[in-house]
Amino acid sequence: MPDEARIGMISWAHVHAEFRARAISEIPGARIVAISDDDETRGQRAADRWQVQDFTTDWTSLLKREDVDIVMVHSENARHAEQVIAAARAGKHVFCEKPIATTPADAQRMVEAVRAAGTDGTAAFVSRFSKEASQVKSVVGSGVLGDILLTRSLIGLAGIAEIGCPPEMAAWMSDPALGGGGAWIDEGSHGIDLLRWLAGDIAEITAFTTNRAKPGLDGEDVAVASIRYVTGALGEIATTWSMSADIGMRNWLEIYGTTGTVLMRATDPQPRVEVYRSDQPELWRGWTTPDIAPQSTEPHDYTSWPPHIHHYKREVASYLNRYFTGRRPFGPTLEDGLACLTVIDAGYRAAAAGTRQLIPIPRRSP
Amino acid sequence: MPDEARIGMISWAHVHAEFRARAISEIPGARIVAISDDDETRGQRAADRWQVQDFTTDWTSLLKREDVDIVMVHSENARHAEQVIAAARAGKHVFCEKPIATTPADAQRMVEAVRAAGTDGTAAFVSRFSKEASQVKSVVGSGVLGDILLTRSLIGLAGIAEIGCPPEMAAWMSDPALGGGGAWIDEGSHGIDLLRWLAGDIAEITAFTTNRAKPGLDGEDVAVASIRYVTGALGEIATTWSMSADIGMRNWLEIYGTTGTVLMRATDPQPRVEVYRSDQPELWRGWTTPDIAPQSTEPHDYTSWPPHIHHYKREVASYLNRYFTGRRPFGPTLEDGLACLTVIDAGYRAAAAGTRQLIPIPRRSP
Amino acid sequence: MPDEARIGMISWAHVHAEFRARAISEIPGARIVAISDDDETRGQRAADRWQVQDFTTDWTSLLKREDVDIVMVHSENARHAEQVIAAARAGKHVFCEKPIATTPADAQRMVEAVRAAGTDGTAAFVSRFSKEASQVKSVVGSGVLGDILLTRSLIGLAGIAEIGCPPEMAAWMSDPALGGGGAWIDEGSHGIDLLRWLAGDIAEITAFTTNRAKPGLDGEDVAVASIRYVTGALGEIATTWSMSADIGMRNWLEIYGTTGTVLMRATDPQPRVEVYRSDQPELWRGWTTPDIAPQSTEPHDYTSWPPHIHHYKREVASYLNRYFTGRRPFGPTLEDGLACLTVIDAGYRAAAAGTRQLIPIPRRSP
Amino acid sequence: MPDEARIGMISWAHVHAEFRARAISEIPGARIVAISDDDETRGQRAADRWQVQDFTTDWTSLLKREDVDIVMVHSENARHAEQVIAAARAGKHVFCEKPIATTPADAQRMVEAVRAAGTDGTAAFVSRFSKEASQVKSVVGSGVLGDILLTRSLIGLAGIAEIGCPPEMAAWMSDPALGGGGAWIDEGSHGIDLLRWLAGDIAEITAFTTNRAKPGLDGEDVAVASIRYVTGALGEIATTWSMSADIGMRNWLEIYGTTGTVLMRATDPQPRVEVYRSDQPELWRGWTTPDIAPQSTEPHDYTSWPPHIHHYKREVASYLNRYFTGRRPFGPTLEDGLACLTVIDAGYRAAAAGTRQLIPIPRRSP
Repeated sequence: MPDEARIGMISWAHVHAEFRARAISEIPGARIVAISDDDETRGQRAADRWQVQDFTTDWTSLLKREDVDIVMVHSENARHAEQVIAAARAGKHVFCEKPIATTPADAQRMVEAVRAAGTDGTAAFVSRFSKEASQVKSVVGSGVLGDILLTRSLIGLAGIAEIGCPPEMAAWMSDPALGGGGAWIDEGSHGIDLLRWLAGDIAEITAFTTNRAKPGLDGEDVAVASIRYVTGALGEIATTWSMSADIGMRNWLEIYGTTGTVLMRATDPQPRVEVYRSDQPELWRGWTTPDIAPQSTEPHDYTSWPPHIHHYKREVASYLNRYFTGRRPFGPTLEDGLACLTVIDAGYRAAAAGTRQLIPIPRRSP
Repeated sequence: MPDEARIGMISWAHVHAEFRARAISEIPGARIVAISDDDETRGQRAADRWQVQDFTTDWTSLLKREDVDIVMVHSENARHAEQVIAAARAGKHVFCEKPIATTPADAQRMVEAVRAAGTDGTAAFVSRFSKEASQVKSVVGSGVLGDILLTRSLIGLAGIAEIGCPPEMAAWMSDPALGGGGAWIDEGSHGIDLLRWLAGDIAEITAFTTNRAKPGLDGEDVAVASIRYVTGALGEIATTWSMSADIGMRNWLEIYGTTGTVLMRATDPQPRVEVYRSDQPELWRGWTTPDIAPQSTEPHDYTSWPPHIHHYKREVASYLNRYFTGRRPFGPTLEDGLACLTVIDAGYRAAAAGTRQLIPIPRRSP
Repeated sequence: MPDEARIGMISWAHVHAEFRARAISEIPGARIVAISDDDETRGQRAADRWQVQDFTTDWTSLLKREDVDIVMVHSENARHAEQVIAAARAGKHVFCEKPIATTPADAQRMVEAVRAAGTDGTAAFVSRFSKEASQVKSVVGSGVLGDILLTRSLIGLAGIAEIGCPPEMAAWMSDPALGGGGAWIDEGSHGIDLLRWLAGDIAEITAFTTNRAKPGLDGEDVAVASIRYVTGALGEIATTWSMSADIGMRNWLEIYGTTGTVLMRATDPQPRVEVYRSDQPELWRGWTTPDIAPQSTEPHDYTSWPPHIHHYKREVASYLNRYFTGRRPFGPTLEDGLACLTVIDAGYRAAAAGTRQLIPIPRRSP
Repeated sequence: MPDEARIGMISWAHVHAEFRARAISEIPGARIVAISDDDETRGQRAADRWQVQDFTTDWTSLLKREDVDIVMVHSENARHAEQVIAAARAGKHVFCEKPIATTPADAQRMVEAVRAAGTDGTAAFVSRFSKEASQVKSVVGSGVLGDILLTRSLIGLAGIAEIGCPPEMAAWMSDPALGGGGAWIDEGSHGIDLLRWLAGDIAEITAFTTNRAKPGLDGEDVAVASIRYVTGALGEIATTWSMSADIGMRNWLEIYGTTGTVLMRATDPQPRVEVYRSDQPELWRGWTTPDIAPQSTEPHDYTSWPPHIHHYKREVASYLNRYFTGRRPFGPTLEDGLACLTVIDAGYRAAAAGTRQLIPIPRRSP
């Protein structure tokens, strides 16, 4: 098993590169050995900030290095495919920001390339790693909810620029050719991946998209979708880039089961999970808000991150822990990324066509 | 202007008849003069309880009485049309439990009959009368939300029998021929009427329905819909008759605007409205939970009803107040009932066909 | 066992007479047979409202009636003693508004008179009968809190007049000669009785009182006390008649035990009880808010009262149920009233003297 | 004005040394130049962790260094006085963990020594620096509360060892000779300083202390006090080291004014401030929970600390900012530390004597 993780970072186009660089800097054995960015100023500054000697504007040179084990890709969404495929062909493990691509076809090629290379391909579905989402996963796993009937999800924020992301990031995310769409692909990716992880695969979708309040945006700032899961359960997903409710992301999730209900508010000023169990004696029957942060296993833990971004640290820590101990996959897979993108794409097609779209089951290798 | 309101009650098939009888008993000038019910035992008991002398199993005889000003209809949904139309033709004002019918065609005939008679036709959309919904209406009216972008609505309960309704009521509501469907028509009617009232007319809908946990029910116990308003805003509606989260109805509503957000939890153990206004100075910017009950104008008010049903009292009080003071209409109209049912019907058709349904604009008289 | 409860009501000086009259009117077998009030207008109106034929301004005549089983006393606090003692001597059961007197000496004489008569003497500690307080009692009884370490209690309201009580009631309550003091005796009585009921007898007290914002009041509008229980646990009590926080009473209670904690907010717009149990598995450890209203045993209960006053109905219902079934005592006893008043009196003495007061144990008959 | 802050750290006996070392490491211009600790292993490890070259077991040698501008003292409480006085005499600014001493006499000598030296003496009242406390300070300063009537404060935790502090820290804090007492001096110091800062000086106190659940502790694990402010307002303070309610500190504060109320829950899994203002129009009157974290001025701020300890970073950042810009004092002063300790001491005397203690006004220099 490896005793070090030597990471090459491609692009700082997405600010999540910064969060992950910080996480890497706090994990023993891991280090960034090289950074590339076609924005030389931006990339060089990141290299300075994280004390990385090797900076280049040529991402392909980074793949040629023998001292790179893992490539992390934070470029514009439309450029992921080319870079991930090349990295896999160079024998690297790849860690790719979500959405992993802007089309299912690209995502399919990425999956195939990584599969052929035999390396690990991880999709950066960071929302799974919030403490709140982990708690919900445990609640679902405990069985107290019974069969799932209905899910509701809201993922929204005030806008990419509005929450403090750099202007050039807001610019490319507002360009469907680079970002792949608007709020639906960006926020919806979080929502759909969480729902798939917690409630299972999605079989059918209908959707509406619109742009109500972002004149400078070519894509949608509001989208809603209704879904049917393979299990037969139903669900709803709402996303927006024009939310007027404090700052930061609202990631709300509700799962209604035959014998219990769970509500989640992650990345919230007062993050919480609430659970209703009908199997309790009458005296105790009601809503419980389990302790989440700080957990009893980390009292007075001054090394963790603030709650609205702690999941980045937990994600990278989990990824590298699996890398070091050799447990494959190292995280949510590119197959998950493809499956998510397939739902996103079906949502766009449903919104355009006005007809329910069946979700194609991703081809699997034999 | 009338100084008394003499009311004939047709049927106790729906327990809301009992709530409204109680409300009538507390309002000066109003009284039930006659009750009809084809279930003689049930009707006679109601007559005894409310000290009404005249009971009959023949509802048509009630329409012939000169001492009846208002007819309130609480029969099985499928029977509303016949009774309301006959009551209108007899020159009576009619107050009809929601959904006002089981088909838009029936509802259209009801609207036309009342219009022809020149009497008042009220649809009993009681959810508008919760204090929480009134508060939300005022918040929307204040303009602080800006343009509405997105709405989310959840209306659910554990089931008709599960919340304590009589078995024979649960039975007819579970029969689509009498009730018109399942959770979607029953709970969705509340949700859609509130959304129309607060956010405007609905132009398009997609939906899914299913039966996940009510084997004895012919209709759906879960439904989800996505909508586009005439304004271009988007929305979602979820309904269920299989909720596992305490008892009673959960009526949750969220309205996201360009400059503010409002969340409502009505008919809840801890009912509340929360408002986010972005126009506040930084020190005060945040979520506000306005005082609702008891209001400052009714301190120590021991005459009001418990919060999970107080809206029935407020609805009947408002209705009779308008009746006594001659302000037409006396409440939400049968046209509202028709418009709501048109959306419900479009939702069922969308769920069956898998295609987005345009909502027909109800024909209006010249 | 009696099949009817014939009640004589002495005085409408306190508005709780009205709540209890309403409760009596809803309970089969119970009725008010006579009302006395030295305010003839006020008393006659009450008699009209509740359809009581016999009204008198002479309360002593009421005690002479053979058709009176129970006397309920709602006169000014300083007059309770005379009336309760006379009623007991007339062989009546007595139900006396809290505080049962304005001095422990009066209270002691009341206890002795009732004991001598062999009738039931009930102190109207209505706060025990809120659903929230009942829930807390059950939580304490379950043992999950372990040994009690600490209690905190806040009872406050905006002022007697401010919450809508009649001016003449506000007037006598503001007169220490009639009311016995200010916020401490009035609100503190609720707090202390709840604490005694839930956490045990009080051994020592220190206190401060002041008048900060009620110029027209001779007594205190704010009081704080620290206490030591007989068990050794400690506690705090704060009371105010000058609260600026919506309307109505705030009755907040916290009990900290070695293995759990319970928080109560009764008579609140969002009433609730929250419980922390350290004996739960990690996944479920956290705060639970048990369902309280509507309870599962009373779904769609349209006969109960609004939450901020429902405890009056529950109190009278419990009292009469015990009366009818012969279970003595019928409610919290005059001994409880004496014990509570002894703590109140010790608090006033502690505030005046600046020294800790031991609470005398009430003399008990052999 | 200085362009660097060279810090000498005396002792890691208190874990807050670690939090402050981390904060220093994140602030440009500041660095720890030397560490002393009589526990050589503990001190050397800290020096290694924070890459400080100079470690000594002799704290006096640290004071002789010319390259030390500021001395931070985190030794056992009883040792603060000797070290702070020596540091002041050596011409150093001193930053001293709270409580600044174990007796008012010691604290008085510390104040005098620093005054004579003309350096800055800061008491580490970190609780003032939580975002929630800052918000409450702004709310009080805005005047919306009117005159303060009543305050309530609860500061508690499960125990020093229970929340994860090192055993040797728990040991000395449990020894009154070294720690100065138990929960009252340790937790009460936070509470009293916050109250003095927010509501003014305290004139009188009564108190009870006990040990209910910590057999190994010589001091108290529960204390309650009632206070009168110089303004005439009243208050209560409860503290415990035996709380059973999740983990970590509960710092709850309530301030009731004539025209408004504010409630604070700091260092809580769901930290929040709630404000009630009676000056709002009826539609908006209610409880507001202002946004606190993340603030709008720090969107996506991945440099801040988790909320249960972020106040340490904010405290040190504020202190050093004032140091660099020459604004004296650099933080809460040793005079504040003395005043707080005087109240703590009066509380212990009140608990022992059973009589109300007047708080002596600290002597001030001419």
